[in-house]
Amino acid sequence: MTVPPPFTPLVQSLPSTVPFVGPETQERRMGCSFRARIGANESVFGPSPAAIAAMREAAADVWKYCDPENHDLNVALARHHGVAPENITVGEGADALLGNLVRMVVSEGTPVVTSLGAYPTFNYHISGFGGLFEYVPYKDDREDPEALIARAKETGAPLIYFANPDNPMGSWSDAAAVQQMMDAVPEGAILCLDEAYIEFAPEGTAPPLDVTNRQVIRFRTFSKAYGMAGARVGYGIAHADIAGAFNKVRNHFGVNRIAQAGALAALADQDYLAKVQEWVREARVRIAEIAEASGLKALPSATNFVAVDCGHDGAFAKAMVEELAVRGIFVRMPFAPPQNRCIRISAGKPDDLDALAAVLPEALRAAADRS
Amino acid sequence: MTVPPPFTPLVQSLPSTVPFVGPETQERRMGCSFRARIGANESVFGPSPAAIAAMREAAADVWKYCDPENHDLNVALARHHGVAPENITVGEGADALLGNLVRMVVSEGTPVVTSLGAYPTFNYHISGFGGLFEYVPYKDDREDPEALIARAKETGAPLIYFANPDNPMGSWSDAAAVQQMMDAVPEGAILCLDEAYIEFAPEGTAPPLDVTNRQVIRFRTFSKAYGMAGARVGYGIAHADIAGAFNKVRNHFGVNRIAQAGALAALADQDYLAKVQEWVREARVRIAEIAEASGLKALPSATNFVAVDCGHDGAFAKAMVEELAVRGIFVRMPFAPPQNRCIRISAGKPDDLDALAAVLPEALRAAADRS
Repeated sequence: MTVPPPFTPLVQSLPSTVPFVGPETQERRMGCSFRARIGANESVFGPSPAAIAAMREAAADVWKYCDPENHDLNVALARHHGVAPENITVGEGADALLGNLVRMVVSEGTPVVTSLGAYPTFNYHISGFGGLFEYVPYKDDREDPEALIARAKETGAPLIYFANPDNPMGSWSDAAAVQQMMDAVPEGAILCLDEAYIEFAPEGTAPPLDVTNRQVIRFRTFSKAYGMAGARVGYGIAHADIAGAFNKVRNHFGVNRIAQAGALAALADQDYLAKVQEWVREARVRIAEIAEASGLKALPSATNFVAVDCGHDGAFAKAMVEELAVRGIFVRMPFAPPQNRCIRISAGKPDDLDALAAVLPEALRAAADRS
Repeated sequence: MTVPPPFTPLVQSLPSTVPFVGPETQERRMGCSFRARIGANESVFGPSPAAIAAMREAAADVWKYCDPENHDLNVALARHHGVAPENITVGEGADALLGNLVRMVVSEGTPVVTSLGAYPTFNYHISGFGGLFEYVPYKDDREDPEALIARAKETGAPLIYFANPDNPMGSWSDAAAVQQMMDAVPEGAILCLDEAYIEFAPEGTAPPLDVTNRQVIRFRTFSKAYGMAGARVGYGIAHADIAGAFNKVRNHFGVNRIAQAGALAALADQDYLAKVQEWVREARVRIAEIAEASGLKALPSATNFVAVDCGHDGAFAKAMVEELAVRGIFVRMPFAPPQNRCIRISAGKPDDLDALAAVLPEALRAAADRS
């Protein structure tokens, strides 16, 4: 009985990690709830009322498995984006889709190119399948498309991750730069273009969809602008050869049936989406004002969060995150230097940002006292 | 651009399959809805009203990611089963947990023991990670625990799948036989004991939980007796070394937040579960009566479905499934001979079974005419 479990050597080597500690975990440790939950880039504005109604309506039918083809949502998304249903793969959140993509391309020792400090859950999947990281540094707080492509060429990496707009910095490249990147993907490689935040970006940020290109897959989500992070619905847009390949590995019945109904209704309510976009624009302005009132610099953002430069190192920003937490404000921060001089504040409702404004100066003094 | 996508050789070799075709797909093909959806072993009785209420309540909060620790549900399940929270791993359905278990143990060429004709989604995962099947035949329409263990010993397979009660036959082994099997698992191997239907089985079917045993993991689900198939909540019960290892590979934010709330409420309503158990017992009796009225033999069942022996071969049973489908009745059938002489009918409400009774004789004649 002392023989270890028969896990593969790769799995034995993996740490038991959570890519992100949830705010609920922090609340349990603190013994109280956050006053403002503006740390996970969730949409505090919530989903469309039509989506909430659809989910409530669907609750009694939850005894049925979901449609494993996600047919209705798939067709609606195809129509919305002007592509064919075969170009869409729906999954239980973009996280699951990223995991499936990595599984399809990466085995032990496969080099993968990403930016140092980019989305940790992508990295979690890379580690989980034994890939090797080829990290490219941010350049002026932005992911560097040219350097990412150059690194892929150097290393022969078959997979390149690029988020536009970027998380955690909120920065972005314009459509021309992204198109140039897509055109330069080395033969035999795939660009994973994560557009989770694209609905918050200025017009002209997303290049046109081109599903004839077999070297790019673009990921979108209902977790951000559509306000349904807890529902777990994301999708990929790609050539049918790429989108269709997910059928080989995906969890076919994996999308929650209530979430399918909610996503369908959310997609149909583009008026509500426009309101969220406006509320987020207002919140970004307000966050910048609050930061600047304390002498901190808010970085430009094309997302539903703002990276705020605290003007010191990662230890100082970490102290800021902690001092805000004990004052009831949940925010997060980038992982890698030099981006980790910032804290990352998600768009909040006026009440959330009032709460932030009320404690930020005090948190700043407390962080300064610690350093 | 004609270079193929950089998928691993394993992934290239996989077919694009769906382990099960959903009833929605069939409905789209037929152009009409089933009158009785009694084919996927869903619980037509639905979840507890308390669970529906909890899910409706949670819908507006779906903008928040789930608690990635599934803390509240984990603690409630641990209390319910008299184990520690560390012995429970919650996932987005037992299907996802099975996939994670397979991923942790199986790499290309790993032998895996299962019964010929047992759960196809487990097999889907085995194929997906390159495992090799060591199939053991059913014995008298039951999975054969002794033969499964013997095959594992012969082949050195590190993973053994055994469902008790069994799907698709509804048969079962008693606790003593299962305990004997657990005690005989070869050193270095894990028994995956799928107890998805255990709540429908007679008292004395499940051996006591023993989370000191590092060679067994038992899977349970909210999809069957709790009536929440579309929610995607399952869990494993195991030694903390096994349950904890899922943290290395699982999709931490993968469980739908509404589903978490629903499962918690469903678990708390054991009175409703008792009602479902009674309704299922009644439905099994009724299905047997309907079958016998047409001269077909219903097999004993410890699940929420009944395998009905159609007395001929797989082609005849397939014709029965099709003839029932065109008459508005959704049922399924086992995949492998000789079990595929049966059709598998899930417990229905009286209306569902009335609809079945009304068309079964006609479907039987039509199937006979085809053969």
